Amino acid sequence: LDQASGELAKQRLERLTKPPGSLGRLETLVIQLAEITGQPLPRIFPPGIAVFAGDHGIVAEGVSAFPQEVTGQMVRNFAAGGAAINVFARQIGAKLDITDVGTAADLSEVEGVRQRKVREGTGNFAREDAMSRQEAVEAIAAGIESAARLIEEGAECIIPGEMGIGNTTSSTAIAAVITGRSTEELTGAGTGLNPDARKRKAALIQRALEARKPDPADALDIISKIGGLEIAAMTGAILAAAARRKPVLLDGFICGVAAVLAVKLASGVRGYLIAGHRSQEPGHEAVLEWLGLEPLLDLQLRLGEGSGAAVAYPLLESAVRMLAEMATFESAGISGASSPS
Amino acid sequence: LDQASGELAKQRLERLTKPPGSLGRLETLVIQLAEITGQPLPRIFPPGIAVFAGDHGIVAEGVSAFPQEVTGQMVRNFAAGGAAINVFARQIGAKLDITDVGTAADLSEVEGVRQRKVREGTGNFAREDAMSRQEAVEAIAAGIESAARLIEEGAECIIPGEMGIGNTTSSTAIAAVITGRSTEELTGAGTGLNPDARKRKAALIQRALEARKPDPADALDIISKIGGLEIAAMTGAILAAAARRKPVLLDGFICGVAAVLAVKLASGVRGYLIAGHRSQEPGHEAVLEWLGLEPLLDLQLRLGEGSGAAVAYPLLESAVRMLAEMATFESAGISGASSPS
Repeated sequence: LDQASGELAKQRLERLTKPPGSLGRLETLVIQLAEITGQPLPRIFPPGIAVFAGDHGIVAEGVSAFPQEVTGQMVRNFAAGGAAINVFARQIGAKLDITDVGTAADLSEVEGVRQRKVREGTGNFAREDAMSRQEAVEAIAAGIESAARLIEEGAECIIPGEMGIGNTTSSTAIAAVITGRSTEELTGAGTGLNPDARKRKAALIQRALEARKPDPADALDIISKIGGLEIAAMTGAILAAAARRKPVLLDGFICGVAAVLAVKLASGVRGYLIAGHRSQEPGHEAVLEWLGLEPLLDLQLRLGEGSGAAVAYPLLESAVRMLAEMATFESAGISGASSPS
Repeated sequence: LDQASGELAKQRLERLTKPPGSLGRLETLVIQLAEITGQPLPRIFPPGIAVFAGDHGIVAEGVSAFPQEVTGQMVRNFAAGGAAINVFARQIGAKLDITDVGTAADLSEVEGVRQRKVREGTGNFAREDAMSRQEAVEAIAAGIESAARLIEEGAECIIPGEMGIGNTTSSTAIAAVITGRSTEELTGAGTGLNPDARKRKAALIQRALEARKPDPADALDIISKIGGLEIAAMTGAILAAAARRKPVLLDGFICGVAAVLAVKLASGVRGYLIAGHRSQEPGHEAVLEWLGLEPLLDLQLRLGEGSGAAVAYPLLESAVRMLAEMATFESAGISGASSPS
């Protein structure tokens, strides 16, 4: 992080025609963006959205309200432009890069979907490891590749997104391993479970963790035993963006888990992360706390795909434009503040 | 409010390719926008920002960190395009309408500022009434005129904004009268008071209320005794927007007080209000509670001018685009949810 650029941004903030500190989070945000990008007037437009799709063997245990085939169907929906993330990508002027890193479907004919299938879905981690260590590395590499391409094509901010029926189950398991909290506390309704199904999901994850015993200190061990291919790819995208000094605008729970894994792999990543919103999934709160992040939005979103981050992106634009475009007290000829007598 | 259009919006929401309810506040927001506009696919673009400036006699008591001349200086800054609200107006594609409804400055030569000066600042309500009842009506009329013009020129959503050194003092007094809470509880730092100055401000407002005795049931009595010309004009803008079935996106504390006065004058206005953000001014919480509104953003903003509402506006766009542009389960050929076995 470039403290000097942050300091310059801060000095300029103090001269703008507004009461000091009166733009709150937008002010701290633009200082962080200056530190990340090394630009006293940071650039964050255009954003690039890297969406990864993968399937989860654990859905055989009945953990999702939707059938597995929906993963592939939704990837087709992304390619056709009809999903929430397409709508929000158009709104914010983002390029959307879609990668099949491990769905169970055959999407090789679908135009606009990059094929980097590491395997056709993970193993059912209630019974076996989700993937091999080598496969985890390949999935991370697919994520690095996507973010790197988006940045080469001009993206100044990376939003990771995902699609994978069953991936709140894998994410909850990872969050439990890393934060040490109970699966009962961390397990939510996912895409729409009733209370009984939610309870069974929490118990299933607990049993699976006891069987797999992932090493909390080893991110690759965690990914290979209980992870998801799309989660690993998001981790890669986050690593790649931070390495290129681009801000990473995080979506909800699953994206947050991928960020935790990225920080585990390279602790310097932490300063490049911005939390877009607070998800309704209870595990997200634990993840945000672990990352030390306070989200920009709290709108009860729980859709995934990167949608909550995309909806938050205009706030980054507001922060950056404010610093670049506002007049200063001197330039506008405006009297400053004083302590009233 | 048009319940039928809201119901149509709700039915369409249920068919979109996402887990039911997973877009949280964006879903309830677009239903409200459908009810307000009477359009099952509501239109809210472009927004129009109606900013009103006025001065406050009460600043003679030393209630502000900034001198009174800053009101006029900032209006010049608005006209020159250098203030925060100009930056955010450009970002969201809003037309900005600026009215001098009662500054102490001579701004008659400033291009882009409409002259509707009711008087040169209010009376010091610690010692006399802020204005006459007739002047309150004239200020409200100036606000109606501004919003009506913006709507005639195409605005589909109205954002009221203000500039007036000393107007948190007037707003705190009004909030105390209407909510019945103590001035000590409601008084904040304004544009930047230290704790001692804040305490003196609270005590001053308390004494002024005891002297003026505004009638809590009579909005015009409140405005004329302790109000502000720009606050009255915002009240008028809100009334005009609601009468034309346009959503009103509220800024922070001062705007919230103007909305309370509008609801006092015409209770049907309430359903047309959307709270853009939660201000750091403590009185705003009391106002939001009285209005029954939950803000979209909570970013510690306290700038005014309409800036917080303008920053929140892209969320309305996200909500509206989501409903209009997302594919449905049928159109995208995607399997629906079921209770997992």
